[in-house]
Amino acid sequence: MGLLYMGILLKNILAILPEGNKDLIKETDIYIEGNRIAAIGKQPESFIADKVIDGKDKLAMPGLINCHTHSYMAFMRNVADDLSFMDWLFGTIDPIEQQMTDEDAYWGACLAIIEMMKSGTTCFNDMQMNIYQTTRAVRESGMRAVISRGLIGKGKDEAGRSRLREAYDERDEARDCDRLSFMLGPHAPYTCDDAYMRIVSQQAKDNHMGIHVHLAESESEIKQIDDDYGCSPIELADENGLFDMPAIAAHCVQITEKDMDILKAKNVSVVTNPASNMKLGNGFAPVPAMLEKGINVCLGTDGAASNNSLNMFHEMSLLTLIHKGVHKTPQCISAKEAFKIATINGARALGLEKEIGSLEEGKKADIVILDLNTPSLTPRNNLLAGLCYSANGSEVETVLIDGKITMENKKILTMDEELVYEKIREIITRMGLHEKEY
Amino acid sequence: MGLLYMGILLKNILAILPEGNKDLIKETDIYIEGNRIAAIGKQPESFIADKVIDGKDKLAMPGLINCHTHSYMAFMRNVADDLSFMDWLFGTIDPIEQQMTDEDAYWGACLAIIEMMKSGTTCFNDMQMNIYQTTRAVRESGMRAVISRGLIGKGKDEAGRSRLREAYDERDEARDCDRLSFMLGPHAPYTCDDAYMRIVSQQAKDNHMGIHVHLAESESEIKQIDDDYGCSPIELADENGLFDMPAIAAHCVQITEKDMDILKAKNVSVVTNPASNMKLGNGFAPVPAMLEKGINVCLGTDGAASNNSLNMFHEMSLLTLIHKGVHKTPQCISAKEAFKIATINGARALGLEKEIGSLEEGKKADIVILDLNTPSLTPRNNLLAGLCYSANGSEVETVLIDGKITMENKKILTMDEELVYEKIREIITRMGLHEKEY
Repeated sequence: MGLLYMGILLKNILAILPEGNKDLIKETDIYIEGNRIAAIGKQPESFIADKVIDGKDKLAMPGLINCHTHSYMAFMRNVADDLSFMDWLFGTIDPIEQQMTDEDAYWGACLAIIEMMKSGTTCFNDMQMNIYQTTRAVRESGMRAVISRGLIGKGKDEAGRSRLREAYDERDEARDCDRLSFMLGPHAPYTCDDAYMRIVSQQAKDNHMGIHVHLAESESEIKQIDDDYGCSPIELADENGLFDMPAIAAHCVQITEKDMDILKAKNVSVVTNPASNMKLGNGFAPVPAMLEKGINVCLGTDGAASNNSLNMFHEMSLLTLIHKGVHKTPQCISAKEAFKIATINGARALGLEKEIGSLEEGKKADIVILDLNTPSLTPRNNLLAGLCYSANGSEVETVLIDGKITMENKKILTMDEELVYEKIREIITRMGLHEKEY
Repeated sequence: MGLLYMGILLKNILAILPEGNKDLIKETDIYIEGNRIAAIGKQPESFIADKVIDGKDKLAMPGLINCHTHSYMAFMRNVADDLSFMDWLFGTIDPIEQQMTDEDAYWGACLAIIEMMKSGTTCFNDMQMNIYQTTRAVRESGMRAVISRGLIGKGKDEAGRSRLREAYDERDEARDCDRLSFMLGPHAPYTCDDAYMRIVSQQAKDNHMGIHVHLAESESEIKQIDDDYGCSPIELADENGLFDMPAIAAHCVQITEKDMDILKAKNVSVVTNPASNMKLGNGFAPVPAMLEKGINVCLGTDGAASNNSLNMFHEMSLLTLIHKGVHKTPQCISAKEAFKIATINGARALGLEKEIGSLEEGKKADIVILDLNTPSLTPRNNLLAGLCYSANGSEVETVLIDGKITMENKKILTMDEELVYEKIREIITRMGLHEKEY
């Protein structure tokens, strides 16, 4: 479960500080007591460091927050590429999910967590189908996560109700682990009918839970919802109460001005997933317009079956580059803005902005330490630009989550990496997936 | 200069083989003698391995070929971001170049080569301004490169003639190093007038040299050339003979159907630079249309001042993703196609297709070995997809160039990395660049 110290001192380290500070990047000392940042700059009284990390040539930053993924899918990486959305989902992914066991989902989540931790992600927002499996991987790895049991259903059908019960069972089982929190996850307007959406909305209100939903991802979804309901997916979700509790809408690629007004008015956070949206041919979300409206935009990788990476550095680089290309405007989505989108905006989306998302006294110690003696971060002209445009995530050296060191000098302390790779290879062999043609 | 062995055996290694093989990826043995691949699969007579690399959990692939960069600019990384093209070039880059010494250019090239080697590039096509500096870094590092002294001039002005003489001086000085070859590099139609272009074309013919030129990068270039000459940059270059010798045109973002027909008819290779084109707000090159026409498209990073990475894995991921987004077509530019673009197409553009660009008996041993026990390449369903969509370049473990091991187990053997970082920091401090605001 990672190394636990009474007090950890990150000494003379360049740190990325939140807005409002005179310098956004400065050399300082960071004091960690228990699972929190006790102080930045000035040693707190009675602080005793039983672990000191020398900050020479290092950069400390808040852990990245991956606001939309399906961690179990990591074992489906590179199994269905360069295919149409329908061939991808129904031709390959669905048949694999039919064969998938709880153990497969667990090892998939382990692989995802290894990849995310190694590339500087310390919290992820997950939608999954096999309860207790992602949570098990999160508990063991020392990760932080928000979990939604994916909900699919029609009206009051038993399958939909049973999935809701599973969502509560999973939440109840994890009450002892404060790195885990839960949302309700109505999958999408094309897999949940309006009656089921209303049931889920009411349950979210009754149980004080947020909503995590896929919305307006593909053009075919827009057409289908328009055919069935005569409105947009955003309007449909709104009318059925999904935005009455704090909500996170993944994708929002195909949206109108009116949709954006609804998202803003209802304070919905939008997760943009640039790689997945391009890879499946869905296009580019109107992120600059959403930011202009004041919508809280955060960043996600989506699952490894449609990205095929869970590396948030890659995703930040896409976020900063593609909209400049689409709008032929090099000022569009600066590195500074992208970094906020990948950190504090994500924390806000998850209702955790008082706990994570920035290096601040009193917040949880979810801290990523990068090696600056790398070609990508040399020279150190503008390190926020460096993180977005030059870094690839391999600069991440040490990771603290909830005050515990979960990775040190590139070695994950909480999981047996080789065992995970071996288990994943066994799944692939059992399913015959490695035999696919190139 | 790297470790030189009489014979190197890559034993039981998964290898990416060129088209025409029954299996594009298979486990095999690769025998290297001197600077060439002596055999694949079957041990040649009288072969003695004095170095054996165990291929277990490794992948061997041809080195990536970065077909357009300005290596000296690596020290300008992250110095001018989120700016308009004019502010970028004239407000920041030009003033830095005014202060730049030959030594600065040399250390910049060293930094670039470290970054490229670590991320699997074994050959690059460079345009630069300080002769003997990039070549010096290439000689010392064991890299392979094609060099163009950037040519800017008007008619028969002395400055333009003097730059041409420098191009020959640099070529002549390097005759002993067969990892170095040379082209003539007329910078662009907005920095070379038509009379100077004709002089350069004639010289290229007289001296049997290829041409490396920037063409049709920005909309302002299109407007300027149309105002001055009443044609497109491609038409202008063609009319002035730039395509009469083997030519490489970088960018080609803003091109017409007629331009594409000229590029195809004249067998011009086009280097696409997706990150740079997006970052500077120039947009997306019509790569699928060029491929459809049968144009030889290859891939480049451009310089670190406008990318800001020289990592070809990042560039491959952009190449495969962005056109799927632009055309809303997930089948657009498959991983297999992108890998060819980043390897054999680049070799063809540089006139080196008989020597490099694929793992084939008789070719130069420019081989990159990746660690497959990484999250990004686990599982191993489709490794070409893995290289394009999942890998970030940090999987590269060992690099052979011209039969020599230049990097082994992630340690560069030919250069002093720490010294390079230190020298780069000195340049930045001298120029006051590290003081830029965030």
